[in-house]
Amino acid sequence: MKFVDKLIAASEKNQSLLCVGIDPNPSQMPAIPLLDFTRGIIDATRDLVCAYKPNFAFFEALGLEGLEALIDTIKYVPDYIPVIGDAKRGDIGNTSKAYATAVFDVFKCDAITVSPYLGYDSVEPFSQHQDKGIFILCRTSNKGARDFQDITAPDGRPLFEIVAGKAREWDTGGNIGLVVGATYPEELKRIRELCPDMPLLIPGVGSQGGDLELAIKYGVDSGGRKAIINVSRQVIYASTGSDFSAAAGKKALEIRNSINEILSQIGKKS
Amino acid sequence: MKFVDKLIAASEKNQSLLCVGIDPNPSQMPAIPLLDFTRGIIDATRDLVCAYKPNFAFFEALGLEGLEALIDTIKYVPDYIPVIGDAKRGDIGNTSKAYATAVFDVFKCDAITVSPYLGYDSVEPFSQHQDKGIFILCRTSNKGARDFQDITAPDGRPLFEIVAGKAREWDTGGNIGLVVGATYPEELKRIRELCPDMPLLIPGVGSQGGDLELAIKYGVDSGGRKAIINVSRQVIYASTGSDFSAAAGKKALEIRNSINEILSQIGKKS
Repeated sequence: MKFVDKLIAASEKNQSLLCVGIDPNPSQMPAIPLLDFTRGIIDATRDLVCAYKPNFAFFEALGLEGLEALIDTIKYVPDYIPVIGDAKRGDIGNTSKAYATAVFDVFKCDAITVSPYLGYDSVEPFSQHQDKGIFILCRTSNKGARDFQDITAPDGRPLFEIVAGKAREWDTGGNIGLVVGATYPEELKRIRELCPDMPLLIPGVGSQGGDLELAIKYGVDSGGRKAIINVSRQVIYASTGSDFSAAAGKKALEIRNSINEILSQIGKKS
Repeated sequence: MKFVDKLIAASEKNQSLLCVGIDPNPSQMPAIPLLDFTRGIIDATRDLVCAYKPNFAFFEALGLEGLEALIDTIKYVPDYIPVIGDAKRGDIGNTSKAYATAVFDVFKCDAITVSPYLGYDSVEPFSQHQDKGIFILCRTSNKGARDFQDITAPDGRPLFEIVAGKAREWDTGGNIGLVVGATYPEELKRIRELCPDMPLLIPGVGSQGGDLELAIKYGVDSGGRKAIINVSRQVIYASTGSDFSAAAGKKALEIRNSINEILSQIGKKS
């Protein structure tokens, strides 16, 4: 099954465009074993999401134990919900091939985030996995996004638009998407115009301050789909006490419902 | 001790600008345990290198066992030789911070390669580790490097030059370097002009076809130092049989000596 079909099926089943980002940070987590934490988050949100996005950095920072918990966390996600490995990998061809093996075969992710800086032959070893989703960083949600992504070519196009154009050109297998931060709504709008059919992974709502309404309005495709609204900290640290799981579920429900209300308001949901 | 001082000390002790890249690929390795392989490579080359550069992708592709071997491989490197973790990480601030913890504290690397696409606040969580070296991807060695790195800004500067300029601006702690492929000698020359004092990590000699003479000539600083000539496959797979260690040592010696001859020819070594 292609990634985008799995995504849409999960999205329809759970009536959700919400993706929960799993970023376990010991300084914010309740004092319980890592796997108890991630399973508690999944238990409370599994009926409310279109995808999960574990962030590799936070598991790697916890060493081999953390990486083992990453494998077990991904295993614990219900089979019908896609897992986007937020790893931001990208290297020369034979190295990207090894990263693809790691993220798809070892960690069993359905999709990955990749950096575009090295160009086509750094992306192709991922995208040749036809059943996997490849999200290329296009417009990131952070302040530093402006440093290079706004540089304009002689034809007036900023780098992030050139990346979007190349991603579209490279997407011969229908499995490439883009990462676009909700913190830059105008850029999101422009990217959706350039790539009307691609899935967009949209971080930056919640702790990072992106506007949810604009993220939905500009992020979805013409059918009100293919926008993956990621929220990490706001959901998983809704409470840092022993009620973390229930609190995460409550917050996820609230955001899922807000998204659906916005979709109704803009006429993208019956 | 700052990374660059450790690098120069190892370089002087071993009279070498050669960095051996450790990219364990089961399809090319002799059929022995991973750690026996990497230790065999280190045993044979420890007197011939200025640094080692383990490539995280190849260890990750081998799962938790591979990552455990990565930790043990780095532990096995003699203390005076710096280890550059070739991980090509880079994400928004709090995530880059977690990657820095992983690469510096869990895997105990002395330096890391990072991608510039997300800008300053993705690099700073690494560079604030003042004793660590941060190699920002500038001009990569692959063909796809041209896709985005050659895009020119209105002032005529290509992206890779803008990255070099920003890296210099950001280098308030004297611990930032650049990755520049030997496969693009003219770009290497230009980058060395722009950043006369920075350490340059130069892959692409050997299997990738970069010219060693030009890599040295254009890559070293005015004192004939701070160019880290990385060779991976050509050394570690010099033989794929039981004599892999001796063959790697022989090949590393040959390249180390070739580098020193070139340095003599261009008057950068007495």
